[in-house]
Amino acid sequence: MTLNWNDQGLIPAVVQDAGTGMVLMVAWMNEEALRLTRATRQTHFWSRSRQALWHKGATSGNTQDVVEIYVDCDEDVLLVKVNPAGPACHTGATSCFFRKLDELLPEEDQA
Amino acid sequence: MTLNWNDQGLIPAVVQDAGTGMVLMVAWMNEEALRLTRATRQTHFWSRSRQALWHKGATSGNTQDVVEIYVDCDEDVLLVKVNPAGPACHTGATSCFFRKLDELLPEEDQA
Repeated sequence: MTLNWNDQGLIPAVVQDAGTGMVLMVAWMNEEALRLTRATRQTHFWSRSRQALWHKGATSGNTQDVVEIYVDCDEDVLLVKVNPAGPACHTGATSCFFRKLDELLPEEDQA
Repeated sequence: MTLNWNDQGLIPAVVQDAGTGMVLMVAWMNEEALRLTRATRQTHFWSRSRQALWHKGATSGNTQDVVEIYVDCDEDVLLVKVNPAGPACHTGATSCFFRKLDELLPEEDQA
């Protein structure tokens, strides 16, 4: 099996709290980020905005210890179950998904 | 607030079982798929391989009733919590993430 990296050499990774089941964040991995994630058992990503490898929590301390990595049926998405050392979101929220769409973008305004 | 659609006009949507917390699948929505998802309260996606709108479960019966939609902090991923009528995966598995990476791609074979 090989993973289906996109045309930028990236694959999306859904990060889920292994204990609570909460979906914490979605970020992108390139081959090196995945290799480092597996080797160190802590999440690493590729920052598309900074065009740089990113060890999650390296500066904030909010690392994520990897429990298990799953692949989806067509091998183009990863699901990483983790034990987080702190909030996943740079805002300080436990999860990056802390806002409901209906409150932000009422249906009639969608376009 | 506006969503950050990618350069193909798409946004990834993580679909999670609202009851069990299981991550079921990840698929892509365009603006019309999101509009239909909100209007019908059942998930709709954009199939990149078929280049067509896709009402999940329209043929299989395995629809997903939408409970709530969340947006992440940088507005480029959706989290859709659903009550599924059946398996999410075309293989018949409850979730598309039914295989562990280590079993498919041993670490030493990664690169």
